[in-house]
Amino acid sequence: MLRHLIQPLDFTTEEFEILFGLADDILQNPKKYSEVCKGKLLASLFFEPSTRTRLSFESAMLRLGGSIVGFSDAKVSSTAKGESLTDTLRTVENYADIAAMRHPKEGAALLASKHMTTMPIINAGDGGHQHPTQTLTDLMTIRHYKNRFDNLTIGLCGDLMFGRTIHSLVRAMNRYENVKFIFISPNELKMPKQFLDEIDPENYIETTSLSDVIGDLDILYMSRVQKERFVSEEEYVRLKDFFILDNEKMRHAKDDMIVLHPLPRVNEISTEVDNDKRAVYFEQARYGMFVRMALIMFLLNLEV
Amino acid sequence: MLRHLIQPLDFTTEEFEILFGLADDILQNPKKYSEVCKGKLLASLFFEPSTRTRLSFESAMLRLGGSIVGFSDAKVSSTAKGESLTDTLRTVENYADIAAMRHPKEGAALLASKHMTTMPIINAGDGGHQHPTQTLTDLMTIRHYKNRFDNLTIGLCGDLMFGRTIHSLVRAMNRYENVKFIFISPNELKMPKQFLDEIDPENYIETTSLSDVIGDLDILYMSRVQKERFVSEEEYVRLKDFFILDNEKMRHAKDDMIVLHPLPRVNEISTEVDNDKRAVYFEQARYGMFVRMALIMFLLNLEV
Amino acid sequence: MLRHLIQPLDFTTEEFEILFGLADDILQNPKKYSEVCKGKLLASLFFEPSTRTRLSFESAMLRLGGSIVGFSDAKVSSTAKGESLTDTLRTVENYADIAAMRHPKEGAALLASKHMTTMPIINAGDGGHQHPTQTLTDLMTIRHYKNRFDNLTIGLCGDLMFGRTIHSLVRAMNRYENVKFIFISPNELKMPKQFLDEIDPENYIETTSLSDVIGDLDILYMSRVQKERFVSEEEYVRLKDFFILDNEKMRHAKDDMIVLHPLPRVNEISTEVDNDKRAVYFEQARYGMFVRMALIMFLLNLEV
Repeated sequence: MLRHLIQPLDFTTEEFEILFGLADDILQNPKKYSEVCKGKLLASLFFEPSTRTRLSFESAMLRLGGSIVGFSDAKVSSTAKGESLTDTLRTVENYADIAAMRHPKEGAALLASKHMTTMPIINAGDGGHQHPTQTLTDLMTIRHYKNRFDNLTIGLCGDLMFGRTIHSLVRAMNRYENVKFIFISPNELKMPKQFLDEIDPENYIETTSLSDVIGDLDILYMSRVQKERFVSEEEYVRLKDFFILDNEKMRHAKDDMIVLHPLPRVNEISTEVDNDKRAVYFEQARYGMFVRMALIMFLLNLEV
Repeated sequence: MLRHLIQPLDFTTEEFEILFGLADDILQNPKKYSEVCKGKLLASLFFEPSTRTRLSFESAMLRLGGSIVGFSDAKVSSTAKGESLTDTLRTVENYADIAAMRHPKEGAALLASKHMTTMPIINAGDGGHQHPTQTLTDLMTIRHYKNRFDNLTIGLCGDLMFGRTIHSLVRAMNRYENVKFIFISPNELKMPKQFLDEIDPENYIETTSLSDVIGDLDILYMSRVQKERFVSEEEYVRLKDFFILDNEKMRHAKDDMIVLHPLPRVNEISTEVDNDKRAVYFEQARYGMFVRMALIMFLLNLEV
Repeated sequence: MLRHLIQPLDFTTEEFEILFGLADDILQNPKKYSEVCKGKLLASLFFEPSTRTRLSFESAMLRLGGSIVGFSDAKVSSTAKGESLTDTLRTVENYADIAAMRHPKEGAALLASKHMTTMPIINAGDGGHQHPTQTLTDLMTIRHYKNRFDNLTIGLCGDLMFGRTIHSLVRAMNRYENVKFIFISPNELKMPKQFLDEIDPENYIETTSLSDVIGDLDILYMSRVQKERFVSEEEYVRLKDFFILDNEKMRHAKDDMIVLHPLPRVNEISTEVDNDKRAVYFEQARYGMFVRMALIMFLLNLEV
């Protein structure tokens, strides 16, 4: 049966285990997998630019021995000539074996996937909506450092209102036993009620102070406050510096706490923190590539 | 001898047969050809964007085991610095084994080809002029479904005045025995006289009604009415909806008629037709990739 | 130890010899090297467009059997979201084995290289500053035709004030014995004093007449007068045509003089000269690809 990855929770926790187990094996034995996608084509369809995500997918496919066709910008696509998204994807299905697709419209990947007969679609971000491979990346990193998804206290800091990667990560982690969430944000950017309602009230608290809670955390997930979310420049400047992580705050954190960030970072993590061994946000990008390799294999039903 | 493909009729009907025979064999035995271009480079030189054509060429080369260098947009090329097209191509000839080139100026591919000593040039579209691999795609699709090029009645519908793919297809089909053309268009967009003059008057008719003639057709070739051809928005809107193909019209067509379209489609074919087995325009894109694979092999003198 | 190529003279003359010897062997036995980079990824990071340089690097990597990820334009990169260059490069380091980087800011490649732990950086041009692989290309071409770097008289003609490739070539050639420089330019575009000061006064002369000196040259290095350097259109037009090379001037040159040009050429070399066997500027682009192949192998410590 043709499978896609449209939303972060399209896979069961059992499927997550298969995926992360495979990603881990690829990480440890890259040579073993270096030709598993030989002769296969990934369509890299970025209807809006996202260099980081695109490079991760393309590197993943190339490191499996596959090839890439695609575009990195909407202006270059046929939709500029009035073509429907469905038609574009049905055409690409003739060329490629699997597609990673980024689109500014919510639901674009889901719509496209409904018309496919042979080509799995990976949602590489659709508007402010879903970005499931970022969630896989976050989980893979947690699994690598903590070796479990249960019995963890995770702090989520910054823009909790608009941060789609945070919403998805919370939902994914909430599927495991005894996970405590600490939501750290200015009042203007609090976690939306619809997401809080899904969590047992005993399993979360909300706070406006990173310093007060950092000592309790196993994981600190920092997020960027996106300029484009704010109505005025002043409002942006006032809020973005609110919850900056620096060495002083890190002094109060556990020795084995890890700091995650989906990147790009602007200034919400001071660069002085980069040299702290607990800062693993650059390594995180690396785990993202490996989990995408596993995902491509999984959706193409490939084994070594 | 160095060969190029600049115009649709650069190849004889005998060479067409070699090409389509090879394309057919690749289609049936893709594995056999998956490394035939190993170590070869295709320069994908798109001085204006054309995602569909570019992806088809690049997929073709990659599925032969070759690699791609190039650009998808004029702004990114050295011609922006005042370099002549000839100089750009002579430089690229040092890097690549074969080139697919799209350019907004008529005659650009021909000019470039005259200065090459080792690198075959494939014209991937030059202005409103020629687009020979679209013609190869159309013919390959006809051959696949009809198993012949002679004794066919083909209807061409839509913008017959400016549609270069239609002009080329008519010329190519007119080389075969007993091919009847039915030209279906509004009076404002009729087939130009210069093309009609090449056809035996007994072998074509002109009409403004798709419904009247659809029952006679073995092949219906639909075409997009390009917005950019019209002087006013009103004129465009009035004409573009004139000859829309829908299920009601399809009821009167033969059971084995096939519907072709070079794509992208806007609304000249209602999406309800997509599910009709006679609608083969998405499959057509697939045959386009296979015929481009054959073409690359042909121009590089490669065999398996 | 992790090595980068940031400035043209980062390598000793002994290392140059290793590099050019390797490039020469690749040129003569390309098959031997066609899989040496299998499984390796080059990050092609062009924060400003430079098609010629980019295609040369990408062709080089592909001809070694490696793969490419990257971007050809700043607008498409994460720096647009306010990310620091260092963060971008640290992320890319997770995906790629080696990077070629072009950036409009002087010193960008050097800054990036300081934060790398596994990925060699090749400076593919930083602002008006350095472009070391062009220098390697120039030297490789000289070595190919002259079989030596010493005892040569080299004329440098055109924009000597702003031409970074000329500054670098002069510094590189000045490391060899008995190299004479003849600087040919309008007074407004003379070689800057800081570069002249590094040369033994007996080893150079300055002139405003190409015709007067062309007969003495073993090598004539022509350069483009870049429009963007001038304050007014009139000033540009007046100066750019000053030192045009044509067949009449070539009549007075030695039979074995070679004409180099970094390309793109606008009109400083008349196209009639292209057919002269001494005009080797298109071949030069080819040697550039081979020396980049050698460079990639050198920095990745690869051998066959």
